[in-house]
Amino acid sequence: MKRSIYLSSTDIEEAKRIFNDALINLYQKKNTEIIKTEHAYGRVIAQPIYAKRSVPFYPSAAMDGIAIDSKKTRGANEHKPLLLDSVDYIEVDTGDPIFDPFDTVIMAEDCIHSDEGISIVKPHVPWENVRPIGEDVTEGELLFAMEHILRPMDISVLMAANQLSIEVYKKVSIAIIPTGTEIRSAYESVEIGDIVESNSYLFTGLALDAHALPTTYPIVKDDFNDLKRVVKDAVSKHDVVIINAGSSAGREDYTVHVISELGKVFIHGLSIKPGKPAILGMIGDVPVIGVPGFPVSAHIVFEEFVTPLLLKLNHYPFLFSDVVQAYSTRRIVSSLKSKEYIRVKIGHINGRFVATPLARGAGMMMSVVKSDGYALIEKNREGVDSNEIMDVQLNKPISRIKTTLLAIGSHDLIMDVISNLFEQNSQPYHLSTVHIGSYAGLLALSRRESALAMTHLLESDGSYNTNSVKRLFPKDKMVLIKGVKRIQGLIVEKGNPKNIKCIEDLVHFRFVNRQRGAGTRVLLDHWLKEKNIHSDTIFGYDKELTTHLAVAAAVANKVADCGLGVQSAAIVMGCDFIPLGLEDYDFVCYADFLEDPMMKLLLTCIRSDEFKDLCKSLGGYDTLGSGEVRFYD
Amino acid sequence: MKRSIYLSSTDIEEAKRIFNDALINLYQKKNTEIIKTEHAYGRVIAQPIYAKRSVPFYPSAAMDGIAIDSKKTRGANEHKPLLLDSVDYIEVDTGDPIFDPFDTVIMAEDCIHSDEGISIVKPHVPWENVRPIGEDVTEGELLFAMEHILRPMDISVLMAANQLSIEVYKKVSIAIIPTGTEIRSAYESVEIGDIVESNSYLFTGLALDAHALPTTYPIVKDDFNDLKRVVKDAVSKHDVVIINAGSSAGREDYTVHVISELGKVFIHGLSIKPGKPAILGMIGDVPVIGVPGFPVSAHIVFEEFVTPLLLKLNHYPFLFSDVVQAYSTRRIVSSLKSKEYIRVKIGHINGRFVATPLARGAGMMMSVVKSDGYALIEKNREGVDSNEIMDVQLNKPISRIKTTLLAIGSHDLIMDVISNLFEQNSQPYHLSTVHIGSYAGLLALSRRESALAMTHLLESDGSYNTNSVKRLFPKDKMVLIKGVKRIQGLIVEKGNPKNIKCIEDLVHFRFVNRQRGAGTRVLLDHWLKEKNIHSDTIFGYDKELTTHLAVAAAVANKVADCGLGVQSAAIVMGCDFIPLGLEDYDFVCYADFLEDPMMKLLLTCIRSDEFKDLCKSLGGYDTLGSGEVRFYD
Repeated sequence: MKRSIYLSSTDIEEAKRIFNDALINLYQKKNTEIIKTEHAYGRVIAQPIYAKRSVPFYPSAAMDGIAIDSKKTRGANEHKPLLLDSVDYIEVDTGDPIFDPFDTVIMAEDCIHSDEGISIVKPHVPWENVRPIGEDVTEGELLFAMEHILRPMDISVLMAANQLSIEVYKKVSIAIIPTGTEIRSAYESVEIGDIVESNSYLFTGLALDAHALPTTYPIVKDDFNDLKRVVKDAVSKHDVVIINAGSSAGREDYTVHVISELGKVFIHGLSIKPGKPAILGMIGDVPVIGVPGFPVSAHIVFEEFVTPLLLKLNHYPFLFSDVVQAYSTRRIVSSLKSKEYIRVKIGHINGRFVATPLARGAGMMMSVVKSDGYALIEKNREGVDSNEIMDVQLNKPISRIKTTLLAIGSHDLIMDVISNLFEQNSQPYHLSTVHIGSYAGLLALSRRESALAMTHLLESDGSYNTNSVKRLFPKDKMVLIKGVKRIQGLIVEKGNPKNIKCIEDLVHFRFVNRQRGAGTRVLLDHWLKEKNIHSDTIFGYDKELTTHLAVAAAVANKVADCGLGVQSAAIVMGCDFIPLGLEDYDFVCYADFLEDPMMKLLLTCIRSDEFKDLCKSLGGYDTLGSGEVRFYD
Repeated sequence: MKRSIYLSSTDIEEAKRIFNDALINLYQKKNTEIIKTEHAYGRVIAQPIYAKRSVPFYPSAAMDGIAIDSKKTRGANEHKPLLLDSVDYIEVDTGDPIFDPFDTVIMAEDCIHSDEGISIVKPHVPWENVRPIGEDVTEGELLFAMEHILRPMDISVLMAANQLSIEVYKKVSIAIIPTGTEIRSAYESVEIGDIVESNSYLFTGLALDAHALPTTYPIVKDDFNDLKRVVKDAVSKHDVVIINAGSSAGREDYTVHVISELGKVFIHGLSIKPGKPAILGMIGDVPVIGVPGFPVSAHIVFEEFVTPLLLKLNHYPFLFSDVVQAYSTRRIVSSLKSKEYIRVKIGHINGRFVATPLARGAGMMMSVVKSDGYALIEKNREGVDSNEIMDVQLNKPISRIKTTLLAIGSHDLIMDVISNLFEQNSQPYHLSTVHIGSYAGLLALSRRESALAMTHLLESDGSYNTNSVKRLFPKDKMVLIKGVKRIQGLIVEKGNPKNIKCIEDLVHFRFVNRQRGAGTRVLLDHWLKEKNIHSDTIFGYDKELTTHLAVAAAVANKVADCGLGVQSAAIVMGCDFIPLGLEDYDFVCYADFLEDPMMKLLLTCIRSDEFKDLCKSLGGYDTLGSGEVRFYD
């Protein structure tokens, strides 16, 4: 196949309209099955259901007591209790049938027992404490209209009403076909150049969420005939087929050619970002969708096209996500040609929602995992300004956002420790962190984009954090909460084969740096200045990574010879570590936020022995003074 | 066992506190299992999970294009394109590894192909369009904190990060033991006096909703030793056991005795209504709960005690239902001694929520099925006045309430037909009906408690509905929508063995009446007056049922010899029918409501041929003019 660079760029709403119109006959087909009612939890009824037996199906006692003919109770009163003749009544328990000549039930509490028998102090009217036939369910009554989704209480009523089997819509089956010569199963061992097939697990879960029955095919190589054979098989056995990926217009992208040879392609290329190289087609009466390979694109195309399709075929309603109006913390530039889906982290700060954009690359699945939702920027819009309001489609309940403490700033592994302690606590609060470095974290706090900042900024006087807070918050009442002292040093390969020992050695080796504004970079620059070393002389000074772990991973993977970072990251990645000095990693928040229950929980966590033990086991931390609070005016 | 009438009456919050305190050791146990990650959708992580492989695990192309050493691109510009030496680059597809000496990828779109080769028009910097190692996931990075519930995207990230098996909390098992000598399986044939066991299906579904693994035992007779043997078996094999019922203090209620003999009873009797006869106990370290037998009581006790217990043991968060503030349409009298759970139907009328109480009996499972939630009336409160605001805990999303047309008034089977037509339509609207009779329905409409009234009120001049509307809505713009003409008549036993022929015959037989305010009763009174028959002379005139079907069921079950009603109900119940006259069954609403999309859908439905055909097949209807609109000023 030749590489053809250009796809069409169809508007997403237009694409949905075209696809839905093409599927209209399919939507009208009624695929049902009859199953045992007791297995029908959550299934959708395909026919109205009427009761086949009344509940109760005979008049019955509504209480424990005695059944009697109401006429035999006349004349009783409090001054002159009536002693009942024992041939006139029978003892009954709740649910017992009430026969002729009995027509009423006197509650046990209203019966006075004595040696002579039972007396009563008031007359009783007919049908008192008697449940008539069909009081709850009447034979022939409509119990559920079509399209009803059966809940636990519904199943119990159907069983009582003698509807032991029912007609429900069949669950739609979906075939998932992973493709790509370089793609390997997650269970295989992999080499450089291989890509691990993980999208099928995303699709499987999303299909299960849409009540469908997913089947994943073995990985198909990039070969037109192989793919055609597999697709033919899949459409013969399934209601919906998705092919992942080969959906673009590259040298080895066969998906569109296979679908158009076996059936019809309606759309190839959408004006959305990520997710452009999508294909909507049909083979016979089976919808076939080419889903792009990058995981974020795959997620968006599945959620926009496959999920609604599966729900519709399954007769389940489409549940719209919660949407909140959130202030953007950044200027977001967007393409005029595409609708953009920006993953964002949402904070609920001082009563308003703020949205911080996460990494935008289509390959960044963790940006979806870490996100609270998608900010949608419509086509023909240039973007969103900082502090401008935008709609965010949440992927979790609003209540979860409101009970999550959003902390933005410098990265350290102790944030993971604290997050775990939050989850283990019985209070319903969560900790969420975004890593953008110390200085940027303080700026975010000052713009009220976070509730808490993590910082380790070396001041010109050799102290940490205090001066920066005073400078950035000149008029506010702030508090600094002591976090940990941690050891910064050089992360080098296991065994230190290059024999790197100090800052001066950096000029001889491949270095990997942290991003501008990161406290670790400030520290490096401070040391370089001290030793009179110019940054130009360090190979890799411009290569920026955003976390300690990423630096350690680069060293472990021999992409660089050394980097600056914390000991815990070196230990986790199996690197050696050359300690250079202690620094203060602290928290900063507005003073009034100390009263917030989430903040109180944070203090409880970092003051606990458990926290101190966990820091010790990570290595490279000193927790003396953790949780101490200092006020600034 | 002796009957002991009195249970304790423990406050529900106090009971929860006592029970939770007793279970504190159980909550701290950590029951986990290691499962394949690909089967872990929806499971809860029991350990923090770190990445075991970076994604990508080698530097890779982020685009299709050519990989090149960036130094070889220097000097290119638009006026002087640079022709590349073919030994200096290789073609790469997205995801391909980028080796030394290549350090940058030029997008296919930026490559100019000619016979001589590829030219470029600008220089490229290092690492352009190259994904660094760990860009998405870094080896050693915390992927998920403990207690995280795994979503589809999480599974795909775990598989990519080489975490192929994970430790999750074990699902809690729950044994459900149905008891009662008179209880029969839903699959058995039943006789008078038998009660069909249906609660276990309710419990099974609720347990599944709480992510537990339910097992239902065979029904146990009311025998102390039998029950003891089965409970012993159940606690040896399950994490939680519920016994249904025998939980009160009656002659054959053994549950409390068995639990206290084998273990400990903490609470017997709650100050809630329904649900008072509940038992909270423990045998060994297995919580054992005695759940009352009436289905509504069973539902409330399960939801208040068993669901939170299962969720807590399963490490799932308890999801609170939506609560709305709704105006009560009735005065509700409540017991000072108990917290009451009143099933209500909610309407969203003119922007406010209104709550109409449904049947209050603990045996009325359909009141739960039909309800939109529970209104909660706290202990020590005498009740709620009509039009007073109360909290209602919804059992469905608020959005569903807002898209449901609430119609209150007279009962007719065509309402079921219209409800089915609503569901089959692609618009997201639903029809919900409450049957309280014509006159009460119009009053409810005038109080803005419903959006629509169904009415068939015979006027003194022999016409239908019009005068009543004018009288009840003197100042409002109203519309009357023609529904159907339907045949009213006498419903008698199959074959009419008593040879009942006309209204005059009623004095000789057992009659069953409709409730006050029902149009059918107005019609009966009209005919009785015409024929000069006094209601006192009719045996059963005071016996009231609220639907046509209930009347037909009473006749079919020989509880009465005849009743007045519509032909369709007689047909459904297999009764004979003696037609007496046609009447108009119409709809009334405020004129401005005609513009509402739900009202438009109702008009579409009753004007459709499908509706007319369905009425014809029901029998006894004339649909000439159905859907005609008449305005009143």
